Amino acid sequence: MVFAAPASLTEQIADHLGADIIAGRLAPRSRIQELKVAGSLGVSRGSVREALLILERRHLVELLPRRGAVVTRLEPTAVCECLELLTEVQVLFFGKLAGLRRFDATPFESCLELMASAVQNQDRAALLEARRAFAGAGITVLNSFHLTAVLEGLLPAGLRVAHLAATHPEYDLRDCLRFHQALLKAVVDQDRARIRELIGAFNTREGKLAVALLEASAAA
Amino acid sequence: MVFAAPASLTEQIADHLGADIIAGRLAPRSRIQELKVAGSLGVSRGSVREALLILERRHLVELLPRRGAVVTRLEPTAVCECLELLTEVQVLFFGKLAGLRRFDATPFESCLELMASAVQNQDRAALLEARRAFAGAGITVLNSFHLTAVLEGLLPAGLRVAHLAATHPEYDLRDCLRFHQALLKAVVDQDRARIRELIGAFNTREGKLAVALLEASAAA
Repeated sequence: MVFAAPASLTEQIADHLGADIIAGRLAPRSRIQELKVAGSLGVSRGSVREALLILERRHLVELLPRRGAVVTRLEPTAVCECLELLTEVQVLFFGKLAGLRRFDATPFESCLELMASAVQNQDRAALLEARRAFAGAGITVLNSFHLTAVLEGLLPAGLRVAHLAATHPEYDLRDCLRFHQALLKAVVDQDRARIRELIGAFNTREGKLAVALLEASAAA
Repeated sequence: MVFAAPASLTEQIADHLGADIIAGRLAPRSRIQELKVAGSLGVSRGSVREALLILERRHLVELLPRRGAVVTRLEPTAVCECLELLTEVQVLFFGKLAGLRRFDATPFESCLELMASAVQNQDRAALLEARRAFAGAGITVLNSFHLTAVLEGLLPAGLRVAHLAATHPEYDLRDCLRFHQALLKAVVDQDRARIRELIGAFNTREGKLAVALLEASAAA
């Protein structure tokens, strides 16, 4: 992630494979073969195994006994369930940020600027990166070990849904910017009811677009 | 876990170290040295590294750049934060169980019987094991990939707090049995408000006992 210390080799492999899963280049339910990945990236099989464990924590890979690593499903029920959980975790997370005695909005405002220029340029990849950085700005200031670990684990799965939703013709990149602007304001205002309302509505909207695409491709 | 397929070597190492952390035999903040563990268990260093990644997902170990694996903190703020998050996740989880079209209480009742005999024998270890099995019975029937993954990750940290709380002189093993009995009834009755109330109250009570012990030992 952009805000962390230089990543270890294992983290780099996990980020590389994770980006492929989030962007859909590695399809849901496809197998990831350790030896093949190790060969193509020129790394040891052990490093790939460790990367797969990191991807399991990020909800992007399932490690099945005797079957190995499989990219996690992306189906309507899984999308809804993921976003429902992510909503609860984000509500806790941004509620805690709102409760900080000294909340510094500056790093979040920088992310909003990145988001605004991504919207301007219709750059979906940059928009996702700015979203990740927005959450990351909270993770670095919040001293909540368990909550940040769970959020860091769920975010990649959430970004995968967001990536899919962003390909829907009705998707409007400006919604994402508006949501994050309103969310930052609600955090600054310490308005917990508004935080819940905003996160719930935004995740529901993205989930609906993603599910519509999944159902259309299943029917095709 | 008792309800899973035969564990891989990596899982066995993770379970072994995890049990030591939960029971306090490996102290909070202590370092876990890969080579030492590999030597004492007669396994490869790679297997230990993989086990540490599993323990990180279980919130029992932190992997720090250039410092290696460290047992996670167990301090009042971390305990409260962990239980607050666990409460939200458990409320979602048991709420979903309550929503199942066909909910079979039988496996949960078997766990309650194990719990009752653990209480009878004042066997705290058996009580913890039965608690784990109670949650596990839900994990096996609930088709919620993300939620069960997060709950499986958080449960060991929750059991670690429970293990500590159980050493408090005011701890009453019967509370744990009564809570699980009432929780199962609330699930069968599909009473979501009661589910939230029960889980919140039980986790708060255990958290208070654990925090009291931590504060007493910090003051000593």
